[in-house]
Amino acid sequence: MIEIKKIKGGVCAARGFVAGAAGCGIKAGKVTRDDVAVVFSEAVATSAATFTTNNVKAAPVRVSAEHLKAGGNRAVILNSGNANACTGEGGLKDAKAMCSAAAELLGLKQKEVLVCSTGRIGVPMPMDRIAKGIAALKPTPNGSAASAAAIMTSDTFAKEYAVEVKTSKGSFRVGGVAKGAGMIDPNMATMLCVVTTDAAIPQSALRADLKRSVANSFNRITIDGDMSTNDTVILLANGLSACSPDMKAFSQALDEVTRALARMIVSDGEGVSRFVEVEVTGAVNDKEARIAAEAIANSTLVKCAWAGGDPNWGRILDAVGYCGVKVDDTKADIFYDKLASVKNGIAAKTPFEKLRAIAAKKSFKVTVDLKLGKGSYYVWTTDLTEEYVRLNLGE
Amino acid sequence: MIEIKKIKGGVCAARGFVAGAAGCGIKAGKVTRDDVAVVFSEAVATSAATFTTNNVKAAPVRVSAEHLKAGGNRAVILNSGNANACTGEGGLKDAKAMCSAAAELLGLKQKEVLVCSTGRIGVPMPMDRIAKGIAALKPTPNGSAASAAAIMTSDTFAKEYAVEVKTSKGSFRVGGVAKGAGMIDPNMATMLCVVTTDAAIPQSALRADLKRSVANSFNRITIDGDMSTNDTVILLANGLSACSPDMKAFSQALDEVTRALARMIVSDGEGVSRFVEVEVTGAVNDKEARIAAEAIANSTLVKCAWAGGDPNWGRILDAVGYCGVKVDDTKADIFYDKLASVKNGIAAKTPFEKLRAIAAKKSFKVTVDLKLGKGSYYVWTTDLTEEYVRLNLGE
Repeated sequence: MIEIKKIKGGVCAARGFVAGAAGCGIKAGKVTRDDVAVVFSEAVATSAATFTTNNVKAAPVRVSAEHLKAGGNRAVILNSGNANACTGEGGLKDAKAMCSAAAELLGLKQKEVLVCSTGRIGVPMPMDRIAKGIAALKPTPNGSAASAAAIMTSDTFAKEYAVEVKTSKGSFRVGGVAKGAGMIDPNMATMLCVVTTDAAIPQSALRADLKRSVANSFNRITIDGDMSTNDTVILLANGLSACSPDMKAFSQALDEVTRALARMIVSDGEGVSRFVEVEVTGAVNDKEARIAAEAIANSTLVKCAWAGGDPNWGRILDAVGYCGVKVDDTKADIFYDKLASVKNGIAAKTPFEKLRAIAAKKSFKVTVDLKLGKGSYYVWTTDLTEEYVRLNLGE
Repeated sequence: MIEIKKIKGGVCAARGFVAGAAGCGIKAGKVTRDDVAVVFSEAVATSAATFTTNNVKAAPVRVSAEHLKAGGNRAVILNSGNANACTGEGGLKDAKAMCSAAAELLGLKQKEVLVCSTGRIGVPMPMDRIAKGIAALKPTPNGSAASAAAIMTSDTFAKEYAVEVKTSKGSFRVGGVAKGAGMIDPNMATMLCVVTTDAAIPQSALRADLKRSVANSFNRITIDGDMSTNDTVILLANGLSACSPDMKAFSQALDEVTRALARMIVSDGEGVSRFVEVEVTGAVNDKEARIAAEAIANSTLVKCAWAGGDPNWGRILDAVGYCGVKVDDTKADIFYDKLASVKNGIAAKTPFEKLRAIAAKKSFKVTVDLKLGKGSYYVWTTDLTEEYVRLNLGE
């Protein structure tokens, strides 16, 4: 028996975790908002993390990956306003200096601290201001909302989620904060997430389970097909619940949190007006299903049609055709929610107005059944709006 | 010695080629514009064609590929307003019926006619109207402009180009018409093109040379990363110039025409405000250079930055990073025209205002030098504007 209940508290919902935020004017020089944040386990913790697979990795990603190797990390220092990416040797030094400053604040060693940055690429970090910001942090058990807000970039709302889990082996909590908004693609994005739990989980099991959970949550989301240099998901477990749950129960709870945060990121994508689940079934294998689902979800033309509330299926079938997977276009079916728009590769008899009513909703599902095998995969994505373009016109 | 001069006449510039257009209301039922066109060699011809590599191929692509096998094709029937794609068995029958109708008009066999369609996917062809349209065609030596106009979809101008070539072995002409606008990606697009020449070229040489020329022209262009179901380039050669040029001279002339038409297609992409040549050099090989160049050219975020006149390089380096090619981000250089924006992976000293002046131009070049090997490749692409999204919101 397992009972999962949504609770408040975000990244501080689990016992022994504190968080806090401060403002130091990273982007513009003057302080207009909080832009540094910290998450800290007051007790010793096990740690896990997954990072962007982009070959161009930001300095904080490199430093965190190095610190993670030793294990036992129990704090994360984060900032918005500057990604510390493409900043050369100086960037690596700055990322380490952020860990040192946080370690000093919290009475830890530099390597016990992980670091995340998000914001513009290619601009040196204003380390004098950042050092002052870190020194001003005062983490508390009520600091989740402030830390979630401090890491926002073009996000329109702060993202927190937490659950309490009751099992026959006792109860524990899992909670987290995240930010997203642009440059969102499978294998994560300009996407930072810190999850904490007071369950007692050995480090190796924790790492395997985070990898599994990320594959079913953050790696399912795509907004614009651009994968960032900074994507990071961190999971800390301090065991203060005194509960060592079955991994199955823990996995379920972790997924509840990572999937909720992933969906929030998609819903809050830049200029987004629709949340679309794209599922491909009947592919020759899961890998081909994934390729097809991602091709549909990243097709500029498909996304533009959705923005217009157009249940266009020609563009969907076109994307399936050019992505290289096996397809028999005399077999494929396409559905908007439960309604067929294509049967055996040609237009179904469903009245267009009924399909249009679905494509005009804020959230709907598109299913493509290739009817060739048992491969399936789904992704969560969005439309592409004029507002998205406007937000990304740059300087 | 070879002398190439631009001339008028488009697809009818070469001797013995006639073209014509007629309107039959394919899209809306009533006739508001010409929407069928024909190109015809009055003499026997050799033929070549390249087609979309999309696994979902429109009916006219399948029928043309079949007719091409026999060779000696000497006419092309084309329509806009309906792509005859994803139309099942009925679509194949309709594409063949179009060939038969054109064959009847011109006194040919069905298989001597190739067929091209462009427009919306998934709608059955209104064959009664189309048959009347084809019967009304009256091809003449002055019909190039009308046929170029008849195949336009969201194109804003008709695309024709022709050259006259003088060589020591005599003179000949090459000319063509094309249409593009949306769904434009390497390996062609919602892109139709018919090129004709009065040079005498054996069929096998003609086919090899068209493939080569398409690789250096239409396969270099990408607007939105979506490759269509209908892309077709057809080349007919009737030998009426009595000139059998060296293949080198012919290749040069053919490239002049295909590359001019390809550039017109990019310039006239939906909502386009910039023409950008993206060149990647120093890749470990040409294949990796191509992957990187196409990743940059298809990055939503890079294209949005260009729309805003922002010489953003972080997004360019990010795209190089996630496309999977080998990159050392402490080595890469990036240039806007001749000005360095990145040197060895970090911001160059060029004043931002100078880079911005380039990114604000109608046409500029971005060069990424990975400094790892000798691989290079370039593509021609565009920005992504709010107008593009507006044009593609669908019904």
